[in-house]
Amino acid sequence: MASGVDFRIAARDGRARTGVLETPRGEIRTPAFMPVGTAATVKAMLPESVRATGADVLLGNTYHLMLRPGAERVARLGGLHRFMNWERPILTDSGGFQVMSLAELRKLGEEGVSFRSHVDGAMHHLSPERSMEIQRLLGSDIVMCFDECPALPAEEKAVAASMRLSMRWAERSRAAFGDRPGHALFGIVQGGVTRELREESAEALKAIGFDGYAIGGLAVGEGQAAMFGVLDYLPGALPEDRPRYLMGVGKPDDIVGGVLRGVDMFDCVLPTRSGRTGQALTRRGAVNIKNARHAEDPRPLDPDCACPCCRSYERAYLHHVFKAGEIIAAMLLTWHNLHYYQELMAGLRAAIAEGRLGRFVAEFEALRAEGDLEPV
Amino acid sequence: MASGVDFRIAARDGRARTGVLETPRGEIRTPAFMPVGTAATVKAMLPESVRATGADVLLGNTYHLMLRPGAERVARLGGLHRFMNWERPILTDSGGFQVMSLAELRKLGEEGVSFRSHVDGAMHHLSPERSMEIQRLLGSDIVMCFDECPALPAEEKAVAASMRLSMRWAERSRAAFGDRPGHALFGIVQGGVTRELREESAEALKAIGFDGYAIGGLAVGEGQAAMFGVLDYLPGALPEDRPRYLMGVGKPDDIVGGVLRGVDMFDCVLPTRSGRTGQALTRRGAVNIKNARHAEDPRPLDPDCACPCCRSYERAYLHHVFKAGEIIAAMLLTWHNLHYYQELMAGLRAAIAEGRLGRFVAEFEALRAEGDLEPV
Repeated sequence: MASGVDFRIAARDGRARTGVLETPRGEIRTPAFMPVGTAATVKAMLPESVRATGADVLLGNTYHLMLRPGAERVARLGGLHRFMNWERPILTDSGGFQVMSLAELRKLGEEGVSFRSHVDGAMHHLSPERSMEIQRLLGSDIVMCFDECPALPAEEKAVAASMRLSMRWAERSRAAFGDRPGHALFGIVQGGVTRELREESAEALKAIGFDGYAIGGLAVGEGQAAMFGVLDYLPGALPEDRPRYLMGVGKPDDIVGGVLRGVDMFDCVLPTRSGRTGQALTRRGAVNIKNARHAEDPRPLDPDCACPCCRSYERAYLHHVFKAGEIIAAMLLTWHNLHYYQELMAGLRAAIAEGRLGRFVAEFEALRAEGDLEPV
Repeated sequence: MASGVDFRIAARDGRARTGVLETPRGEIRTPAFMPVGTAATVKAMLPESVRATGADVLLGNTYHLMLRPGAERVARLGGLHRFMNWERPILTDSGGFQVMSLAELRKLGEEGVSFRSHVDGAMHHLSPERSMEIQRLLGSDIVMCFDECPALPAEEKAVAASMRLSMRWAERSRAAFGDRPGHALFGIVQGGVTRELREESAEALKAIGFDGYAIGGLAVGEGQAAMFGVLDYLPGALPEDRPRYLMGVGKPDDIVGGVLRGVDMFDCVLPTRSGRTGQALTRRGAVNIKNARHAEDPRPLDPDCACPCCRSYERAYLHHVFKAGEIIAAMLLTWHNLHYYQELMAGLRAAIAEGRLGRFVAEFEALRAEGDLEPV
């Protein structure tokens, strides 16, 4: 299999790595955090502002985009990048996860899954072949295999059956994807928290061959200890020279723990969703801006943060506009949160490059312990 | 009376004038449109973006700010400019209009008005003296007299009584405002659509003496013809060397008609509110972006508009994000609308300065008649 994109590891520190994933639309510095742009927008942000935070790549959701505005329509309009005014790389998920969590009246079989749209009630179908087609129509740079993701906890037998279905779908995804220079296809390891299943899944994917390897089916209720338990061995079972992507993760300390264990890519709605619900994430923990104690606080969210929110606005103002239901509250808090996440990733990359990741993590944890803020 | 701010008229064309209102926080080029920043934010916009559209001055609402976060709190936090990160001029209304339109359980007397907050049900009081105090606490650059504004149509007797109460309140406002160099106090002409009452009101205000003269009580249901009927004589009854401000107006053709009749300043929620409800205002009329005919339209809202929305986004995208309820829809449409309004004001100023206002207005009307868009 010819590799669709180039991945170069520049430095290592323990199991952690830093490098660059090269795509025709620009480089992705790893470890990377991908803001989520579900419906062709990173909620409450203009794309140039997302870029200003330091993001190299966005995640788009196949499930949402196929339902509205529709993949064929996006293709006719010139593809997702042009549609949403983001010319840098986009990774799209396969739709599998959201079908399970959002759609109604699912009917799952070997061939794929039929479901009713949560938007307008229309019937839709997803399969490995259709997911590859949709992601191609969108113009995705990094395409994810179509998989099934059971919620945890689940019976080991059910997890095993689901994982093996996902592996057969991975093979069909690989065949349907074909050879697309400049575009990457990532496989997704499943298998819950059972080591034998995870390793079986990793072996199956390696036998097929992918441009990158994602770890799916975590951060779905198993807890951080169980997640780290999987990450203690799973990255080592994946090809050393290919990027590893931990899907849907996570909180800042989840990301640090993932990087320490050899993960290269992350995505999560937490910084954007928290921004809209009034929770700012900072190096010293969370600030719940709706709390009355912020009503007259003249301090910024984080005095050492250089984001536009912290440079120009006091907590008292953010409290006021959040309580008043003003859109600027979501705009400013989301910007801060995404800025904080990208600062964290930049810090991790620099620390790995300079061989001081241990010290960086110790400082990260000390700052979190120091504040009187709530833990994230 | 010493004038609180300097107003220089640079050029005239018919009854229209262009000039500059100088304040310590910056100059206001007239004719000026003031975006409305009700609750210490121009909804869905960052203040630097509002400035980028060309706005010299914002309007803040005393009624909303006194209820939340409270004028004393804003003062303790350093004033409204610092609070909302807008260092340029701010005009605040007096609270009178919103008390009548938004508050519950009003009790109106000679002294002032008591009312129940629509936010939390608490009882509040406004009077000329308290309104002046609140606007001082906010740090307003241009303060409006406290007045009463009856909805039209109303009995002439009621309009006359209300106007005379407003004139007594104007005198108390003037006394309570005192002498504040660098800050302006504007009187407000009332009197409905009755010429004798309007002229009586104008004379009463001139006898007191103000830094500027507002025309209140229009755009409250009387229709454009009746409004223009008042504007045909009223500006001429006001001091030639002081700015004239038509409150709460309006649609683009209302503004053009006001400028033609000698008005210098305007404010209206239309561009911001329309932005949030999916209506774009363009030189060719309105674009209702939720209309299905825009679903696959690759054109910008206005091909000749240089705003960030028109430069980078197609109608198809705006339709999609509006239908999906995404915040970016309000952000982009509001930006476009405010940009369009400021472009219109800049065009009017240039046309007056160059003695070609008649041609400018003819082109303005021809463009609006040309499109297949809905009239604004």
